[in-house]
Amino acid sequence: MPPSAIRSLKPFFRPRTVAVVGASREGNGIGHRILESLRGSGFAGSLFPINPHATAIAGLPAYPSLTAVSGPVDLAVIAVPSAVVPTVIDDCIVKQVPAVILITAGFAETGAAGTSLERQLLEKIRRHPVRLIGPNCFGLMNPDPAVNLNATYTPAFPPAGRVAFASESGGLGLAVVTAARRLNLGLSGFVSLGNHADVSVLDLLEYWEEDESTGVMLLYLETVVEPRRFRQIAERVGRRKPVIVMKGGRTPAGQSAAGSHTAALATNETAVDALFTQCGAIHAGTLEEFLALATGLSAQPLPRGRRIGILTNSGGPGVLCADGCAAEGLTLPHCSDRTQAALAGFLPRTAALGNPVDVIGFATEDQHARAVETMLRANEFDALIIVHVSVRAEDNPPVAAGIARGIRAARQAGATGKPVYICWMAEGDPDRTFVIDGETVPTYRHPEMPARILGRALSYDAWRQRPVGAVPDFGEVDLPKAKAICMSALSQRGAGWLTTEETSAVLAAMELPLVPGGVAANADEAVAHARKLGFPVAVKLASHRIIHKTEVGGIRLNLTDEQAVREAFAAIRDRLAQDRKLEAMEGVLVQPMLSGGVEVMAGMTRDPLFGPLLGFGLGGIFVEILGDVRFRLAPLTDHDAASLVGEIKGHRLLAGYRGRPAVDIKAIENVLLRLSRLVEEIPEIGELDLNPIFALPAGQGCKIVDARIRVEATDNLSVG
Amino acid sequence: MPPSAIRSLKPFFRPRTVAVVGASREGNGIGHRILESLRGSGFAGSLFPINPHATAIAGLPAYPSLTAVSGPVDLAVIAVPSAVVPTVIDDCIVKQVPAVILITAGFAETGAAGTSLERQLLEKIRRHPVRLIGPNCFGLMNPDPAVNLNATYTPAFPPAGRVAFASESGGLGLAVVTAARRLNLGLSGFVSLGNHADVSVLDLLEYWEEDESTGVMLLYLETVVEPRRFRQIAERVGRRKPVIVMKGGRTPAGQSAAGSHTAALATNETAVDALFTQCGAIHAGTLEEFLALATGLSAQPLPRGRRIGILTNSGGPGVLCADGCAAEGLTLPHCSDRTQAALAGFLPRTAALGNPVDVIGFATEDQHARAVETMLRANEFDALIIVHVSVRAEDNPPVAAGIARGIRAARQAGATGKPVYICWMAEGDPDRTFVIDGETVPTYRHPEMPARILGRALSYDAWRQRPVGAVPDFGEVDLPKAKAICMSALSQRGAGWLTTEETSAVLAAMELPLVPGGVAANADEAVAHARKLGFPVAVKLASHRIIHKTEVGGIRLNLTDEQAVREAFAAIRDRLAQDRKLEAMEGVLVQPMLSGGVEVMAGMTRDPLFGPLLGFGLGGIFVEILGDVRFRLAPLTDHDAASLVGEIKGHRLLAGYRGRPAVDIKAIENVLLRLSRLVEEIPEIGELDLNPIFALPAGQGCKIVDARIRVEATDNLSVG
Repeated sequence: MPPSAIRSLKPFFRPRTVAVVGASREGNGIGHRILESLRGSGFAGSLFPINPHATAIAGLPAYPSLTAVSGPVDLAVIAVPSAVVPTVIDDCIVKQVPAVILITAGFAETGAAGTSLERQLLEKIRRHPVRLIGPNCFGLMNPDPAVNLNATYTPAFPPAGRVAFASESGGLGLAVVTAARRLNLGLSGFVSLGNHADVSVLDLLEYWEEDESTGVMLLYLETVVEPRRFRQIAERVGRRKPVIVMKGGRTPAGQSAAGSHTAALATNETAVDALFTQCGAIHAGTLEEFLALATGLSAQPLPRGRRIGILTNSGGPGVLCADGCAAEGLTLPHCSDRTQAALAGFLPRTAALGNPVDVIGFATEDQHARAVETMLRANEFDALIIVHVSVRAEDNPPVAAGIARGIRAARQAGATGKPVYICWMAEGDPDRTFVIDGETVPTYRHPEMPARILGRALSYDAWRQRPVGAVPDFGEVDLPKAKAICMSALSQRGAGWLTTEETSAVLAAMELPLVPGGVAANADEAVAHARKLGFPVAVKLASHRIIHKTEVGGIRLNLTDEQAVREAFAAIRDRLAQDRKLEAMEGVLVQPMLSGGVEVMAGMTRDPLFGPLLGFGLGGIFVEILGDVRFRLAPLTDHDAASLVGEIKGHRLLAGYRGRPAVDIKAIENVLLRLSRLVEEIPEIGELDLNPIFALPAGQGCKIVDARIRVEATDNLSVG
Repeated sequence: MPPSAIRSLKPFFRPRTVAVVGASREGNGIGHRILESLRGSGFAGSLFPINPHATAIAGLPAYPSLTAVSGPVDLAVIAVPSAVVPTVIDDCIVKQVPAVILITAGFAETGAAGTSLERQLLEKIRRHPVRLIGPNCFGLMNPDPAVNLNATYTPAFPPAGRVAFASESGGLGLAVVTAARRLNLGLSGFVSLGNHADVSVLDLLEYWEEDESTGVMLLYLETVVEPRRFRQIAERVGRRKPVIVMKGGRTPAGQSAAGSHTAALATNETAVDALFTQCGAIHAGTLEEFLALATGLSAQPLPRGRRIGILTNSGGPGVLCADGCAAEGLTLPHCSDRTQAALAGFLPRTAALGNPVDVIGFATEDQHARAVETMLRANEFDALIIVHVSVRAEDNPPVAAGIARGIRAARQAGATGKPVYICWMAEGDPDRTFVIDGETVPTYRHPEMPARILGRALSYDAWRQRPVGAVPDFGEVDLPKAKAICMSALSQRGAGWLTTEETSAVLAAMELPLVPGGVAANADEAVAHARKLGFPVAVKLASHRIIHKTEVGGIRLNLTDEQAVREAFAAIRDRLAQDRKLEAMEGVLVQPMLSGGVEVMAGMTRDPLFGPLLGFGLGGIFVEILGDVRFRLAPLTDHDAASLVGEIKGHRLLAGYRGRPAVDIKAIENVLLRLSRLVEEIPEIGELDLNPIFALPAGQGCKIVDARIRVEATDNLSVG
């Protein structure tokens, strides 16, 4: 986003004057509530209620229209009936209001008429320097004490902090912002996106990327509008600040529910997962995890390693926390001799000094303080989790004071940069927050959650530390030739599969390693090919109309002499004749038999929203029955290709298994990267399968044994 | 448990007189705290503080010893230093105290000396009619208003209800019982098991099975002491009342943590999972889920089907709940025309009437009441989830009142037996509880959790509805012969693998379908076997000392004539000679070649605690790399065998895949059942593998191609 575009969002977050259009006189009207919220949050600038039927609202002078306001209006919040909206937008344009929040519903989320109305609004504002949030939204907040802007209709106002939050659902936004104070989740901004007709989540990511008060971004999405730009922007932003995403509508039931309340398109969740993985977004599976990630990552530094210390006053909860750590791949080194000696100096004899350190249930404030300080300063740990269960309500204040003292002492002694998380199970005091010299220490209710968040933080950090992936150009390949073949097939025969020869030529143009071979129109030609290739050979039906060749007896393997090749040709032809499909036979493909290596497969399907989605797996039942396949969106970077291959469960089979040699993984990655380049360049390729590919021992490359490519016209494809 | 044994626990839960031995004068001593807890809970019976150094404690007359109390003492709670415990136990015996809770730590959890001390105590009490809970425990509670017994050292006392809770960790017990009031989790009893030297979780399961006030059992375990009895009892109890289990120490890190605070043995978690699956225990993965299951299953009936209605006032949270339902395999049918018409009669025009039904954010008390009643009475749903996000704190009371009115109206109109769950996201009011005419409606903080609990409830109900599994006897098999072969090998050669001939004989005695074949000592014999079997044959090294035959070139397949058999024999012999291993060669096994079918494997390892653990999978990389293998404990029931086969991911391969015939699944199950019978009967079999087994098309059975059996002495095996 150019700096001017970022500037265009500033009046939303830092307006000096706000008009509420449709500020009703009655307390239950939305406009009235918004006005009350703005006054309740202590908005520092001027407020103008707009209502043609009132002279004063809630003690403020009211104006009949926006144009009746004498000075400039930075932000207009509109809560009038949808029929009146166009007129109000006209007023905004006349009045040169740079920022408009349209609360009103009744647009694209209601069907065709509403969509058309929304499009008209958009066309109108796009001709002027006015930006619009909504329609069908819940408003916007900026808790920065210098602004104190609550332009929503809930009076609940979160504390100021480092988390910027955009939500595609007003209700979900409401649930988070109203819980923020209890969760001690400080926000630098909240936007309810509504139908995101103009201002999108991407605009906000770019704004918050540069916003100094924002350290973490939190997104609740029900669709992904421009996946390609999302990937680009979120990856760039994510390298500076964590981007935490939750996706609603991950199942058909959820998508159907989402479709009924916003204008969200159903999304391909395989593609969504690939997108979030590729751009480093931290993907929350549940609302609880979403909130826990936000409170954790905004308040504490990322751990520098996976060695966790647990300090508890209670066995079982310490055990559950240890189990949680292990489940996240974290390690629990024992306390060093030095640390144990220090702890033994002030803890009771019955305390456990390994890890978890158990100070036992009756530890005093001082024992807690010293134990926390000792553990936080110990070099053998990269992070500390404190798990507390209180025996009596009156124990909570001294324990909390001890924990705070210990953290302060450790920080003052230089143990900064090491995260601390607390599991606080203290009845009578369940929502205690810990803020020590301005540092918030996140608290959770259950002992597994801090472990989970530390695990996610480490994965994010590993992604962030990795150099940016490169998309190789393969400048040497003949893409124009590949494209010409596809276009020619498309124009001659329309949408459909390429012939065996066309497919071979496309792969050859990409310098993809197809097994050598030749198409033969008759048995003599087949024998000639076989002689050239050397026996044994395979003879396969060549046909762009018959895709499942095995089912028509179209594959003959391990043919060791000329006679066998002739018989195979005849058998294939006779069977097709018998099935009255002879006209579909273009001939046979003769290939040498391969041996050794591991069979894998790569494929591409094109999603209307996400574009080419590339898959990789071991093929056959591994993909179809065991589901051991991974996906990434094109364009693939070198990292994407490596992780596609490395993430399948069967990866150990490629790395060498039971004494077999490791296969040429680099060669497989190279095939995937070329494949990505091909389908990026030629949008007419709608589907592509390389299956099987023989992955040969390291250094020997890999060989594509079977391939098929389907082409189709691109007119009704919108590649996001 | 005989009725007398159940009676023996009654004084723990319903004592008329309680003595606190070690009731200190100072407020911070544990004994003093227990006394205060008992008075604070309003214990209805008589209390006797026992302290030789005081005449009165906390306003009650104190006694120098138990024997100084004049009347009977039903329950003694002991909190004296461990050195004094034996004397106090002697007093309990003299005084004929039937129930003793030993709070004191310093026994088996501290090492060998403590274990010996604990054993001595146990020997003492076992000679008298006295039962003991602990040592190293946190106490016991019975919140029944007729009893009001809080014999722990936390003053927090849960409400009375239907959940009985036993915890192997005091701290975890504390976390649950102190949270119970906030969670509206009513308890019928709580026991901190400590080292469970005498009273075990099994005793408690049997007691609560018959206890009329208990409807659900909640267990936190860190070990499983008698897995066989656990399975038997928990399965029986589980058919009457849900048993919810959480296992701490599921990872090496967690087990190490558990080992440091109780006397828990490390457990094989594969066996633990198998045990819980087989006995129908509802296994919670996290503390949060553990609590959510307890509140849900104790308060609401089990759903009769998986059709869920969602009623919400907010889009996004409704979407997340819908996603949660779909993830649990629940369905969200649309509201029927009739239901939609009813809802449209009182909901605003913008409400969504499909499913979720969205009453929108400003719905009134009356609209909530009527919507809840309508949805709960609608025949198209088996359960209702209400998801509420409040816009303003003042909206909460009317919404809550509306929900309660709606539930009451539906129940009064006969819509009983249909569960209702609430996700209540209402700031300023986060811990609201719903109790309507005595019916508790569980509330959760996040929209995914009610879906999760309903899913678990349905799985439990499906298990409960299934007839009890049968363990077939296979009376016709020759178990004595199998046993004799194993014992003979063991006595002749000590622990080790059976020879090929011994293995064949054991399988034959069990009527397990081994591929026909014969062991040949020389090439002529091999040829004779091959002629008898018919070509092609396989020739394999026979040796009980060389287990990995492939690695020494010991497997020759597809031999089509006599010459090939002779060459194979010579090649195997020469290779062994070359490796200087000829003395390990017993000969060769000649088998016919099999074709068709799917290769599977079955195996058994014997766990010192859990006994025989049987595994099933597709073998090879499916088991070793993809981990697609399932386990069950012996003895297998017919259901266990069917679920072992049915639960592997690769099951579709057995059911017929891409036009291949389904295999003979009954025959595989039969192999597993016979295997279970064999290893049950012969504890000297320490390990057994049938790999591969050729599963042939349905009706043709299956064939065991390779088998190995290891025997070992049983002296240091304790089969639990």
